Amino acid sequence: MRIECIAIGTELLTTRRLDTNSVWLGERLASLGLAFHRKTAVGDSHEDLAGLFREALTRSDLIITTGGLGPTFDDFTKECFAEVLGVALQEDAQSREDMLAFYAARKRVPPASNFKQALLPAGAEALRNPVGTAPGVWWQDPPAHPGARIVMLPGVPREMKRMWEEQVEPRLRALAGAPVHTLRMVVAGVPESALDERTRDVRERHGHLDWTILASLTQVELLARHADPGALEAVRIDFLPVLGDDLAATGAANLEDAVLDQLRARGETLAVAESMTGGLLAARLTAIAGASEAFLGGATAYSAMAKAALLGVPADLLAAEGTVSEATSRALAEAIRAKLGATWGLGLTGNAGPGAEGGAPVGTVFIALAGPGGIESRTYALPGDRVDVQLRATAWALDLLRRTLRNG
Amino acid sequence: MRIECIAIGTELLTTRRLDTNSVWLGERLASLGLAFHRKTAVGDSHEDLAGLFREALTRSDLIITTGGLGPTFDDFTKECFAEVLGVALQEDAQSREDMLAFYAARKRVPPASNFKQALLPAGAEALRNPVGTAPGVWWQDPPAHPGARIVMLPGVPREMKRMWEEQVEPRLRALAGAPVHTLRMVVAGVPESALDERTRDVRERHGHLDWTILASLTQVELLARHADPGALEAVRIDFLPVLGDDLAATGAANLEDAVLDQLRARGETLAVAESMTGGLLAARLTAIAGASEAFLGGATAYSAMAKAALLGVPADLLAAEGTVSEATSRALAEAIRAKLGATWGLGLTGNAGPGAEGGAPVGTVFIALAGPGGIESRTYALPGDRVDVQLRATAWALDLLRRTLRNG
Repeated sequence: MRIECIAIGTELLTTRRLDTNSVWLGERLASLGLAFHRKTAVGDSHEDLAGLFREALTRSDLIITTGGLGPTFDDFTKECFAEVLGVALQEDAQSREDMLAFYAARKRVPPASNFKQALLPAGAEALRNPVGTAPGVWWQDPPAHPGARIVMLPGVPREMKRMWEEQVEPRLRALAGAPVHTLRMVVAGVPESALDERTRDVRERHGHLDWTILASLTQVELLARHADPGALEAVRIDFLPVLGDDLAATGAANLEDAVLDQLRARGETLAVAESMTGGLLAARLTAIAGASEAFLGGATAYSAMAKAALLGVPADLLAAEGTVSEATSRALAEAIRAKLGATWGLGLTGNAGPGAEGGAPVGTVFIALAGPGGIESRTYALPGDRVDVQLRATAWALDLLRRTLRNG
Repeated sequence: MRIECIAIGTELLTTRRLDTNSVWLGERLASLGLAFHRKTAVGDSHEDLAGLFREALTRSDLIITTGGLGPTFDDFTKECFAEVLGVALQEDAQSREDMLAFYAARKRVPPASNFKQALLPAGAEALRNPVGTAPGVWWQDPPAHPGARIVMLPGVPREMKRMWEEQVEPRLRALAGAPVHTLRMVVAGVPESALDERTRDVRERHGHLDWTILASLTQVELLARHADPGALEAVRIDFLPVLGDDLAATGAANLEDAVLDQLRARGETLAVAESMTGGLLAARLTAIAGASEAFLGGATAYSAMAKAALLGVPADLLAAEGTVSEATSRALAEAIRAKLGATWGLGLTGNAGPGAEGGAPVGTVFIALAGPGGIESRTYALPGDRVDVQLRATAWALDLLRRTLRNG
């Protein structure tokens, strides 16, 4: 089945808005053993949209659109499809009722423009929207295109996802292929090209799987996809000796999940003292539900004074060694560990830029880990701009703890 | 000029990878007074790619592609275009030399597969890649398409951006229209639909501008675009009485920039004590270069014990009121303010979920602001999942401080 996604909205062509809807939809299709062969973003131009719909009908069996279902002048997804397929728009009584009820519940009257949302192409079915006022559309076997299906969804993610889960996915299950399973392995501390070489033999031995290597700032993901979970398990086992300690997490987990799991399994706790990563390391950990079992908290000791006031780092050490130094990172790690009574304390200090700081070039980072056996520390020279350096530093800090726990 | 973007790579159709290259390119085009009329993501399928290239040549004057220029079997952007346009691929001597030099500098020999990167469609020009091994392609007036231009760029953002800035943009300047300027106004604390209604009169009075309203979790952006910066200034002035205190920032700034600017202008400082936002508020502030002039630091007091140990919040208050309470938020704000000697202290506590915590439903958030004039506090019921609640809470905290500074 050929499936394509059309994301509608000029903001997708001209602003920083990212089309995340099609990414979410792609994952939902994968669970049904399906995939997009193409995704297109197009603007609020009647002509461009109608042209794109005509094309899509010639090459795809299932067309999923997001956006353009609202009440304003730049919403005309339904109008365009109706025009291309030569049918009229008709008011759907249930959609009209739903909209009136939505406004009544908020003690308001719908603006006149809202009523166009209750119109549907003749022959299509409304998908009710419990979260908003714009119904979606399910159109099976439109004129001159037997076997085709058109699904028009709202652009607002929360509305789109709920409509998909409750009304679209059940209809598609009948058409679904065998679910495609994914093996995802997250590798930390190894550059992409090195990982590509190291894993080539195993990947070629399992060449019947669909392989992808995705490098990001802080980790590299190895993805293998196949309908047979047994085939994926076999390759996972083959990878263990090849990846060794570099394998940080599998499945949906990332570095922070892996570290929290390790700590919870050992009944141990962590506290962090950050300087130039300014709260990012704590934020990564606390984004994970259940983090509180292992993560006690931390300090963002952004200034020299804060390092002294919050953590008791001696002023003369800061003066002698500088705030950006190995000694300071060690002092931070020890201090936060003692203050919160944690098993482990991570201390980070460095220069994320843009300017040189205290003699340290941009990208210089010192990370220390204080634990029951003592303190270890590492020095890094990290590339990229301010945010890059902050993100990379948090990843190296988590990975240092992960490897220490793995080997201890 | 009709311009389209083609992002090539199966990972763009099947994984969580977002196509950020086309967003960056869209912004660069805007500075030249140009815009995409369409963006397409397509997989590593020779047939799909060739088909898409054929279409693009019929409807666009400038086709920009990213990806598929590498040495592996799934890279065939150049091959596809050459096939569609009926020309052969030829080795480019400079590209070959550049690649050998790249590897020599790293004391390595290029794998045999890399040499295909030095091939070019006959009649096209190589765009040198100082950061990687894959040259790009600039192809003006390809066979049977006089006036068309094809630009093939690497998929790796760092390589793509540099190539664009140094070699593509200069060539496009000759074709550029008048630069399009953008007026961006960030509004906090007002829902999108209310903002739409409140601003309708002004927007209609300035109907010759290109308007977009972009709502995100934590703010709503009003964007107006026009070639005449005077026209944009006129509408900005018309908006001031309409938006009043709700206007949080303009230009490229967001809430955190606005707050840091206000503090710096007043010579005042801020410290934050977070609980369920776990470092995110501090991270938002420290992502901004120069934050250290106004932001002293903070504590992520994730557990009750950490609130006591790091900030001295009395254990009996926590026991009596609960960690998720207005009283605790006030104690946090006061404590961090005193500990770091800051002009202002923000304290946040709440329940981000997924489970109910200490009787507080998911989404309950208490925010307190301690300052020279005393302490004020607010209670919120925020929608969404864990990360939504955390993000929204940081925005409300920043906005509370912003409005207090604006009015005091």
